[in-house]
This record gives sequence, C-alpha cells and structure tokens, in this order.
Amino acid sequence: MYGIFSYGISSPRVGYKYGNHILDLEVAGLLGFFDDLGVDPNVFTRSALNDFIALGKPVWQAVGQRIRQLLASNEAGLNGVRDQVLIDETRARLYLPVRVGDYTDFYAGIYHAEHVGQMFRPDAAPLLPNYRHLPVAYHGRASSLVVSGTPIRRPAGQLPTPDGHPTFGPSRALDFELELGLIIGKSNPLGEPIAVDKAEDYIFGITLFNDWSARDIQRWEYQPLGPFLGKNFGSSMSAWVVPLIDLEPFRVAAQPQEPTPLPYLQGTHPPSAFDLELEVVLHPSGDADGIIISRTNARYLYWSFAQMVAHHTVNGCNLTVGDVLATGTVSGPEPGSYGSLLELSWNGTRPLHLPDNSSRTFLLDGDRISLRGWGFSNGLRVDLGDVHGDIQPPLSYDHH
Amino acid sequence: MYGIFSYGISSPRVGYKYGNHILDLEVAGLLGFFDDLGVDPNVFTRSALNDFIALGKPVWQAVGQRIRQLLASNEAGLNGVRDQVLIDETRARLYLPVRVGDYTDFYAGIYHAEHVGQMFRPDAAPLLPNYRHLPVAYHGRASSLVVSGTPIRRPAGQLPTPDGHPTFGPSRALDFELELGLIIGKSNPLGEPIAVDKAEDYIFGITLFNDWSARDIQRWEYQPLGPFLGKNFGSSMSAWVVPLIDLEPFRVAAQPQEPTPLPYLQGTHPPSAFDLELEVVLHPSGDADGIIISRTNARYLYWSFAQMVAHHTVNGCNLTVGDVLATGTVSGPEPGSYGSLLELSWNGTRPLHLPDNSSRTFLLDGDRISLRGWGFSNGLRVDLGDVHGDIQPPLSYDHH
Repeated sequence: MYGIFSYGISSPRVGYKYGNHILDLEVAGLLGFFDDLGVDPNVFTRSALNDFIALGKPVWQAVGQRIRQLLASNEAGLNGVRDQVLIDETRARLYLPVRVGDYTDFYAGIYHAEHVGQMFRPDAAPLLPNYRHLPVAYHGRASSLVVSGTPIRRPAGQLPTPDGHPTFGPSRALDFELELGLIIGKSNPLGEPIAVDKAEDYIFGITLFNDWSARDIQRWEYQPLGPFLGKNFGSSMSAWVVPLIDLEPFRVAAQPQEPTPLPYLQGTHPPSAFDLELEVVLHPSGDADGIIISRTNARYLYWSFAQMVAHHTVNGCNLTVGDVLATGTVSGPEPGSYGSLLELSWNGTRPLHLPDNSSRTFLLDGDRISLRGWGFSNGLRVDLGDVHGDIQPPLSYDHH
Repeated sequence: MYGIFSYGISSPRVGYKYGNHILDLEVAGLLGFFDDLGVDPNVFTRSALNDFIALGKPVWQAVGQRIRQLLASNEAGLNGVRDQVLIDETRARLYLPVRVGDYTDFYAGIYHAEHVGQMFRPDAAPLLPNYRHLPVAYHGRASSLVVSGTPIRRPAGQLPTPDGHPTFGPSRALDFELELGLIIGKSNPLGEPIAVDKAEDYIFGITLFNDWSARDIQRWEYQPLGPFLGKNFGSSMSAWVVPLIDLEPFRVAAQPQEPTPLPYLQGTHPPSAFDLELEVVLHPSGDADGIIISRTNARYLYWSFAQMVAHHTVNGCNLTVGDVLATGTVSGPEPGSYGSLLELSWNGTRPLHLPDNSSRTFLLDGDRISLRGWGFSNGLRVDLGDVHGDIQPPLSYDHH
C-alpha cells in the first residue's frame, strides 16, 4: 500500500506500508534502487502520490515489482540499509495520500439503496426506476476530505421538525458510511469518454473510505438537488492506497445485472466485483477494543469499478489523476452486514445494544468508528488498512 | 476586472482589463509600480489569480487603487511605458482566471425555482418546503470548468423514454443557465463556520457564469442524489473577475425574506442584492450579431451572497481561495427575463421564433450563447464582461 508519511523532522514523502513497517521510497530512491527502471526518484519526495501515479501503469507495475523484490530478499536488497529505509509505523505521521481535484460519490451498493427506499418510500418499489440502468452518483466536496485519524466535529445545521419549520442545532443523526474510494490514475481530456473495456487502466488503486453523514440535515436540505451540508463537513480516507493490480486474486463475477445495461456499460467481459471482506468497528468513547457492528463484502456492489468510470465520462466529463470515486455505502442483504447506522438502527427505530449496556441509534460524541478490510484467497492475504475517526462535540453556537 | 492572459510568446500572467485594453500587471510589477505597497510582484507572474487573491482584502484594495491611479493619469503613471504595459485585448489569449478547488452551485434564483416547480410539479406548490428556509445548493464539477470561448461539445448519455427504459444518444435538450459565480477570496479552516456578517470578506469578486445543462440526461439521472452528468460536461466562466468592492454602487436591498430565516442567516443589516443588468444573446450558427433572448437582473436572487457563504460553512465545511460559488439561474418574473431555455421555451412547449425564421426549444449545434452584464448607477458604469461558448456537434458513438 502506498501513502504519504513523515517521521521525526522529515518532510512528507512517499512510503510503502508492509506489515508494521513503512518503506521510505524517498530514501530508497536516493539509494538508487529505482535507477534502472527509468523512474524519476523525485516523485517519491512529494507530499502527495499524484506525481508518482501520473507516471502511468507500466511504472506502477515496475515499482511494485521492485518493492516486492526488496522486501522479499534482505540479502540482495535492503541488507545494510534496512535501518535507513524501513521505518516502524508507530513513528510515522500520516497524510492524505493524494491531492484530490474532484470527489464523486456513487450509490452502487444495491442493498443500501434498497434499504433506504424501504425506510423512506415504504409504499413504493425500494429501488428508483433508474437504479438498475445507471450508476447513480453525485459530486461531493474535495476540500473537506481528511486522512484517517482526523477527528470529525459534529456538524450543526437546519434540522427538520414535524411542523415544517426547521430548527437549528447540532445534528442528532450523525452516521458513518462504509465505502471504498477509487483513486484515479490517468486523466482523460474533456470531451473524450473512457470506454468501459479500458476503464480499469484509469484506476490506480483503492482506499477505505468513510462518508460521514448527518441524516437529519440531509433529509431537510436534499430536495431537489441532492446532499450538501449533510455530507460536506468531512469525509475520511485511509492513509494507504492499495494498487488495483494487487486485488486481482480477489476478482469475482459481479452479481447479475438485470436488465442488461446499455452497450456503453457492457464490456467484452462480464462486469466483475472484488471479494474483499469489510468490517465496521464502533469504539464507544474511543475504547481501544471496540465492537464489530457490521461485517460485509465489497462484492455486494451492483456496478463494477469499470462501469463507474465509463459512466462518469460518457458525457465527456474529464477525470484527473488523484480524483476520488467513492462507491457509495456497501451493505449486504442481512442485518449484520449493513454499512451505516441508518440501516443498522433502521432509521433509529431499532437501537443497537452494546456490551457496555449503552445503545446507539446514531453516533455519540466521543465515539470512534474504524473501517477495516482485507482480501483472503488461496492463502494470500492483502490488507486494505483502516480508516478511523473520532466524533468531537459540536461547537458552541452562542454567537449565532 | 482581473484575469489571466498571455500575448505573443509570453507566459500567462495577471492582467487588469480596462476598456479594450489589458494592463499587464507582471510588467507593471517589474517596473516597480507596486513596490511601495509591500506587494510581492511575483503574484502577478502566475497562471491563476489565487496567489494574488490569497494576499487578502487590504492588498486587493491597495492594488485596485493603484491601478486606478495609473489608468487615470497617464502623465504621472504610465507615461513612457504605456506600450509596455497596456495590451490591446485583441492580442490577448485568455485563461480560466482561478485554479478552482471546489465548485458549488446554488439555486438562489427564486423565479427560476418557481418556474421549474410549475413545469415539473404542476399539482403542487411551485417551491419546495425548504426553499425559503435555506439556500439550496449542490456540488458541481471543478475539472470541467472552462474559460469563456471554449467550445462545448454536446454530451451524450442516457435519455428517458416514455416506456421507462432509457435510450442512449446525444442530448436533445441542451441548455444554458445564466448565473453569477462568486470567487472565494479567503479560506476558513475545516470546522469553523463563517458568520454571515463577515461573509462578504470571504468573497474576492464575481464572474459571469454559464452552467450548461442537458435537461434530458438530468431528468433521468437526478433522483435521489441530484444532477451529475446532466451538468458536469462543462461550465463556462468569464475570463474576468470583477472585485466585489467595485459593485458597491449597485448594492440594493434584497427582496423581503418570508419567513424570516434562522438567526445564522440574519446579519446585523438586512440582506442585500446587487442591481446588475444581465442579458442572454443567442447567436444562431455563431452569427456575429445575435439576438437578445433574455434581459434580467441579479437582484432577482432570493438569497444574498453573504447568506450563501454563511450557509455553506455553517456545518464547518471549509472554503478555499479560488473556489467558485455559483448563484443558480437568475430569472425574473416576466417571460422575457428567464435565464434558461427550459423556462424561455417552457420545457420545449413554446418554441422561440427567431428573426432568421428558425426556432429554438433547446440549443442546436453551432449555436453560440453569450451572457453579458453590467451595472449602471448615477452615471457610473461597471462592466461585468461576457462569457460565451459555441455548441459543437456530438462525438460519433459508433464505438459503443
């Protein structure tokens, strides 16, 4: 996994996380470990992955292979310089891994969409008519993306009331959303769509992603133009990006798509998903152990990563290296596999009872949410890292 | 008006448009015209206004005053160097004036919102219940913002059909939206709202803005998360930003707000609007003269600029220098004052008949739309410049 880190008085630089250690790619570059690959080692001195990513897929592959060689054989590789290039992760400070131009949030978790429909439109079909025809998405806020570990302040805003007049105050329905974030690895010019068969070439990798949501603010504001202040107070990304190529062992067939989507969403091969285990841990008052409140899997996404990219650009919209395309909440069909408290507490009607005798409908101040993920197949495990954040109490709003 | 321009083989730099000339602020800075102001002249050598803007409001004011001195008195100021620093605008190539981090689109034109409601929800109240309580807004796409003059390719996408199954093809309902864009001049930290009384300090200036829209794509996709591909194929900004301070002579009282908004949207003074004339010119097949198809005024906006900024940040969302907050379509109450073809043709049911005997419901390939604006008060005129773009035919989609 690639990310940006610093330690001691060093400047931020590119690192590769390996177990509990981080390979310092700036130093590895200075030591000449990438010289024969024709890679400019300056890209590893930057405070975001964008310049490395922009070098393109052949470079990602060559650098990845070299890193595996170095880490596999201490004799041939790191022997003698191990202390210079391998940093204990406890010493590292972590940063947002990419400089994000635009952030898009999809809605590709079909069970999540069904659950929302069941809750808020109980008398209608759970999925809206467009759901199985196109990967629904909207634009989110790039400026408020933060790296894992950054506290999230409970937002205030207009809250709906039964009499139709809003009140003002801190959100009482603060939630997480378990998502994956795709990191765009290649830009397309404005006006030039990306064909679905080529779309995966435009994805560098994935991160764990938490799209914090204030359900009450969102419910009042979102008609007719979609979510805004209910979302843009903060979204958390893992500090680490897993290259898409490392997920190949976990590729599986996507669930059947009925009706068959329009040709621009159909590739030569059927759409695929990735068999990645995901879990949500609630740490009441930041408690170290925490309680697993959901176990789910990335294969529950209805639309493939390639279809998201193809759809996003079919009108000519341009993606840029470092953009984030989040998948939308990943939920499974069973109650223990939901990717938000909105679903887990069924909009607050079924509180979660916790071992400490407290209960939750939505998040309390001091709660920490950690999202974790991994792939495991044929004895091979790939860790997706984690993304976590603590809920801070709201600002005092006396000055309003 | 400030913008970014180049001429001949020069690099892009900051300029100030004055009539038909552009004052080259890079050269003016090299000549020492700003030395006594304590302004680093390097900010004028950049390819975006962001670094100049980030110097803050006292610098905007000091530089603006110096420029007016220079332009007013040739003897004391530009005499002898006039040819070095004043460029004929016909020689200039223009660029996007700012590097935009995030682009937000409001919906503050109340007549526009009413017209949309009348068209699409004829049996209900034209305004949704939240409209008069909060400035509705959503996030747009920053990557596809283009400078005035950039052609806009007709987007393709999923189009709704009566049988509920979408078809694929170029949009048949391509439209413009007449808007103003606020350019953010000061950043606020994540988690720290901007009070409405201080909000105007966070606005550097305004531009004319055209939020091109594909109504058919938008209608099919926008439930439940808002517009996406119907908008993000391109939005056009004027090359020139008018400092907010230059609009002071045109400040007027905003229309009454009923009900009174929540306290965080109320300032010490009543909300204000700006009396700025706006007009839309359609140039069929790029025809030089064109036909004025709408005349309207910025005072028709329901929410003030300050309220937009205060609302956007009340949940702690952080704005960044160079961000664009567009107002949403500015329409007046009368048919000749609508800011979109959707309204002018009443969703295609009332074609506009043009002097060349053609008619329009939505835009045809080859059409040019120019938006123009100005303020005029007590003999003082301030020009807002223009934003224009030509519609290019769609890509051939045989490869899909």
